[in-house]
Amino acid sequence: MIRFECDYTTGAHPKILEALVNSNMEACPGYGVDIHCERARIMLRALCQAPEAGVHFLTGGTQANTTVIAAALRPCQGVLCAETGHINVHETGAIEATGHKVLALPAENGKITARQIDEFCQAHYDNAAWEHMVQPGMVYLSHPTELGTVYTLADLEAIQAVCRRWRLPLFVDGARLACGLAASDVTLPDLARLCDVFYLGGTKAGLLFGEAVVITNPVLNRGFRCHIKQRGGMLAKGRLLGVQFEAFLQDGLFLDIGKKEVDQAMRLREAFLAKGWPLFVDSPTNQQFSVLPNEAMAALEEKYSFEVWEKADEDHTAVRFCTSWSTRDEDVDALIADIQKL
Amino acid sequence: MIRFECDYTTGAHPKILEALVNSNMEACPGYGVDIHCERARIMLRALCQAPEAGVHFLTGGTQANTTVIAAALRPCQGVLCAETGHINVHETGAIEATGHKVLALPAENGKITARQIDEFCQAHYDNAAWEHMVQPGMVYLSHPTELGTVYTLADLEAIQAVCRRWRLPLFVDGARLACGLAASDVTLPDLARLCDVFYLGGTKAGLLFGEAVVITNPVLNRGFRCHIKQRGGMLAKGRLLGVQFEAFLQDGLFLDIGKKEVDQAMRLREAFLAKGWPLFVDSPTNQQFSVLPNEAMAALEEKYSFEVWEKADEDHTAVRFCTSWSTRDEDVDALIADIQKL
Amino acid sequence: MIRFECDYTTGAHPKILEALVNSNMEACPGYGVDIHCERARIMLRALCQAPEAGVHFLTGGTQANTTVIAAALRPCQGVLCAETGHINVHETGAIEATGHKVLALPAENGKITARQIDEFCQAHYDNAAWEHMVQPGMVYLSHPTELGTVYTLADLEAIQAVCRRWRLPLFVDGARLACGLAASDVTLPDLARLCDVFYLGGTKAGLLFGEAVVITNPVLNRGFRCHIKQRGGMLAKGRLLGVQFEAFLQDGLFLDIGKKEVDQAMRLREAFLAKGWPLFVDSPTNQQFSVLPNEAMAALEEKYSFEVWEKADEDHTAVRFCTSWSTRDEDVDALIADIQKL
Amino acid sequence: MIRFECDYTTGAHPKILEALVNSNMEACPGYGVDIHCERARIMLRALCQAPEAGVHFLTGGTQANTTVIAAALRPCQGVLCAETGHINVHETGAIEATGHKVLALPAENGKITARQIDEFCQAHYDNAAWEHMVQPGMVYLSHPTELGTVYTLADLEAIQAVCRRWRLPLFVDGARLACGLAASDVTLPDLARLCDVFYLGGTKAGLLFGEAVVITNPVLNRGFRCHIKQRGGMLAKGRLLGVQFEAFLQDGLFLDIGKKEVDQAMRLREAFLAKGWPLFVDSPTNQQFSVLPNEAMAALEEKYSFEVWEKADEDHTAVRFCTSWSTRDEDVDALIADIQKL
Repeated sequence: MIRFECDYTTGAHPKILEALVNSNMEACPGYGVDIHCERARIMLRALCQAPEAGVHFLTGGTQANTTVIAAALRPCQGVLCAETGHINVHETGAIEATGHKVLALPAENGKITARQIDEFCQAHYDNAAWEHMVQPGMVYLSHPTELGTVYTLADLEAIQAVCRRWRLPLFVDGARLACGLAASDVTLPDLARLCDVFYLGGTKAGLLFGEAVVITNPVLNRGFRCHIKQRGGMLAKGRLLGVQFEAFLQDGLFLDIGKKEVDQAMRLREAFLAKGWPLFVDSPTNQQFSVLPNEAMAALEEKYSFEVWEKADEDHTAVRFCTSWSTRDEDVDALIADIQKL
Repeated sequence: MIRFECDYTTGAHPKILEALVNSNMEACPGYGVDIHCERARIMLRALCQAPEAGVHFLTGGTQANTTVIAAALRPCQGVLCAETGHINVHETGAIEATGHKVLALPAENGKITARQIDEFCQAHYDNAAWEHMVQPGMVYLSHPTELGTVYTLADLEAIQAVCRRWRLPLFVDGARLACGLAASDVTLPDLARLCDVFYLGGTKAGLLFGEAVVITNPVLNRGFRCHIKQRGGMLAKGRLLGVQFEAFLQDGLFLDIGKKEVDQAMRLREAFLAKGWPLFVDSPTNQQFSVLPNEAMAALEEKYSFEVWEKADEDHTAVRFCTSWSTRDEDVDALIADIQKL
Repeated sequence: MIRFECDYTTGAHPKILEALVNSNMEACPGYGVDIHCERARIMLRALCQAPEAGVHFLTGGTQANTTVIAAALRPCQGVLCAETGHINVHETGAIEATGHKVLALPAENGKITARQIDEFCQAHYDNAAWEHMVQPGMVYLSHPTELGTVYTLADLEAIQAVCRRWRLPLFVDGARLACGLAASDVTLPDLARLCDVFYLGGTKAGLLFGEAVVITNPVLNRGFRCHIKQRGGMLAKGRLLGVQFEAFLQDGLFLDIGKKEVDQAMRLREAFLAKGWPLFVDSPTNQQFSVLPNEAMAALEEKYSFEVWEKADEDHTAVRFCTSWSTRDEDVDALIADIQKL
Repeated sequence: MIRFECDYTTGAHPKILEALVNSNMEACPGYGVDIHCERARIMLRALCQAPEAGVHFLTGGTQANTTVIAAALRPCQGVLCAETGHINVHETGAIEATGHKVLALPAENGKITARQIDEFCQAHYDNAAWEHMVQPGMVYLSHPTELGTVYTLADLEAIQAVCRRWRLPLFVDGARLACGLAASDVTLPDLARLCDVFYLGGTKAGLLFGEAVVITNPVLNRGFRCHIKQRGGMLAKGRLLGVQFEAFLQDGLFLDIGKKEVDQAMRLREAFLAKGWPLFVDSPTNQQFSVLPNEAMAALEEKYSFEVWEKADEDHTAVRFCTSWSTRDEDVDALIADIQKL
């Protein structure tokens, strides 16, 4: 079975694993104040051109989202996001469990727009009963989105302008940011400049686990480690996160991994289109969504794992193929060859 | 100014007020264990034909909704309701503040159906990622709804059957139940039989304040007074609620008030239709929604207060007129005459 | 049975009730933006010499405490209070239900000191593991305390200085403040000057219900009405609170009630002491705690209701007698005569 | 610097690390449903003689404590624990953040007794105001405790009998259980038999991270994975936990590690006593607390790291030395020799 069902089926990229093995017997203080975390922080601040930013390492995405959002919102505030946003759908109510409503906006291919945010806020404060309604308190975007699409720099700049108008912190979930950097015109310094907080995901880009949260808003950064502890995200052997991110950031490994995932995904995308299979979503990143004839799907399932997304019609099904740091070129070759043969 | 903007602009019905005045100097134990509360409980249980039901008096609707829902749900569960439901829109996130997601379903005229609930639950448990999603844990209906519409007995029986199938407690918000009893075929014994919990609202039917929560599910009832205390709803002079509900339930006063409100509302409805103004929602209860020409609206605003609901088109606006326990027949006469004159 | 068991057994003071009856048929907008609330706000601001203060009316103490504390604290913060404080003992975990720890300090006769607060904060920030501990985020005092004792102006000034040092908002629960004003050198302007927020209780001083929250900290006041709504404390017929507080504040009625309660309590205190019964707590307010021989207690219980506080030894019991707005002088006379006869 | 300051300064035990390296390129499904987790579950159930138990792997102790307690408690319930308990002191209010009070009991050397629990419950339900107080809903013990002490089997059996009497689930935090098994007469089958839920800690016993939660109460186990996801503890590459626990449980590695840590600690204990330094706490596990003359402490600090616990008097300080899986015998030899030389 050749696996394309998600981007976290295997362990760590060899360079990451090597770093873990090499540092294993070092004695470090706990809870993320060790030398590896500190070095990784310095590297990430430099890459972001944000020398003052707070950098915090958490183990997973739900944890990062919950901790950031609960730290940012006041009790009567909610977080605006796409109806398809991870926090709205796939975190078992983690945000609500901290007391906050997710204010879901209709999304097109996983994205929301500056205009939607602006109109929502305008309508909220125009409403005579606004005191009886949850106040928009933050904007959450995923980049890439849950459907593989990306925001352009122009998108983000427009959104940030609206956020500033309504005094809303902007938060970008970058669980797959390595691919987003490879597939959009948005850079780390752009994110650091435009967001109050974002994260660079490691779990889906070759780390065993780990998300690097970058906070450029100093008010939000104050006491953030207490929030991490309270939400259960303070790893005793925090050095594991530092060690991994050091290796991930070193010599642009994170960029290489993202680029390779995207390149492989683009080859798949072309194969689908060449075969005449329409795209379910036109994604420029490592998640590829295509609509397959059911027989073709059945044939591919014998050799490849991938995710059945939803039924398109009686005879067709939308599916998702993911490339990952461990996808080999020969795996992609084989899949393309099999598609062509069908 | 003759007021039709809502059903809680005035104080208490004379019989309610008289009961408060007459009992004022009685010394009673606090927190709802006095003789008045006990009598009102006995009366309401009898009216519901539910001799074992728990009956608890709270001061307001948001408090009742929050206390009931937070007591019923387990941490990863949410409450299903109409997207227009009060808990989803107009309680400043009170439900989420207790840690639970409101699972909003598309509503037609404020109502949801047994089928929608069934399909939602089916889809939830069919989803491979169900553990990552908020579990449906309760169904919340408003009867009448926020748009004045009502559920029929057949509606409720179908919903209850689905609730039983999926092991979901059924909760009916009866903030305007006095009107619902007058305008639907659903009775108090029906509600007691079909719901795990519902309430009979007093605030919008002539009490100073007060909602009588009836809990027929013994598991939910256990320790419910602790939940009331924790959520801030335990009135020190709890006898005020008992005294008011005694008078409200005595000799069917609550039914008379509901019937009168509905009768007056039906006269308004006919006047709107006779004038050729379409209904925005076809409501059989004390909230009447009509679409008026803007000039007519402006003319009426000089003499009557009512709520502007939303813009219908450039020249027309949907508005809401409410009757209440204190609406006089001559107020309705005057309004109808003015409508006819326009 | 003559009742001394608590200060909320009866309904409203005649002047309060009269105001409710007289205003009953007025039509007012809901939710506390009516003319009565507005007038009561103006009166209370003037009495506090705090023309900019926010004034909000809530129905009860638990609700007021929860809403204020949840609005003031950030997620990792707790509220410092006496171990005997109402929020720590008798609110069924209402504060914790909003996500915050109550940081209980040992109390002497219900009071805590500036020094205790200072030392707690010093120790917190001196602790190497402070990020793993709940941060002190607010100070809660009761004045009078749950044991009837009061803070002096010097006490409060010292506490406020410490609060300022550690950037802690100071919150005074004034559920029995009418007595506190009669029995201490602390005035409303003092409270407004020294506290970020406090409240003047009505429920235990002759209102049907109602606590007037005064917020002098503008940051805390911003959006406070949203918090009230979210926590279930936004009364639909909010005018009821305005009407009652207008009457309560008019011509110093609240001061008269407090003074009378205290005067009667002082007569009881003297009678206990004259009889040779020691005070359990030396309280200058309407709660009197005495240690009685068990036979004397049994004899008094036949004619008077009072609260058994705790067993003192095999032969003696500590009890609490409360005077209230409705305690008649002849009730006190009778009790004193019966004590003397024993 | 030879390190004795805590038991999580180094990475993974060589066998654990080897297992991670060897399995690194395997493709596994995410979120803990892989073959490694399944095998580790089977092994742990067998070791516990609890074939029906739920076994769940989480990354850390705060996460495990929060998830278990929030899953077990109803809204008005709190968790009983020693005042020194980790959840009461060192988790930044994580339990309260889920809405629950920690009901702290005075502890002797970190332990609480069956009698204390029984008396607390009796007093709670005897209290006339019990509805206004947080209900005891669970008992939390640490074994070993935060002070290194352990419960005997007789202790646990007495506590469990009281828990059963009051219908309280019993939860044992086993962050250092590997040592507890080596230093007490309590076995894994005992824990499985006596507790509703407990965990076997890996983080402090040679894993990179990981706690294995064993739930024998089937009601608590139902839907527990949803709770894990909601609280941010669902690791995407869940196989990392399975792989580590497989190696940890294989051939009794966890027992060997615990035994070695304890043996080394006992050598330290003897050295302290031989030197005439009193024990601060008499601990039979890997945490050793001794009271040192300040000059001795200063001398040792030049070569060894350890934790300064608290000032004993002007001239003496209580300190903690920890052994860990990576403490070498020669490190202990060196320390003992230096103590003798002082």
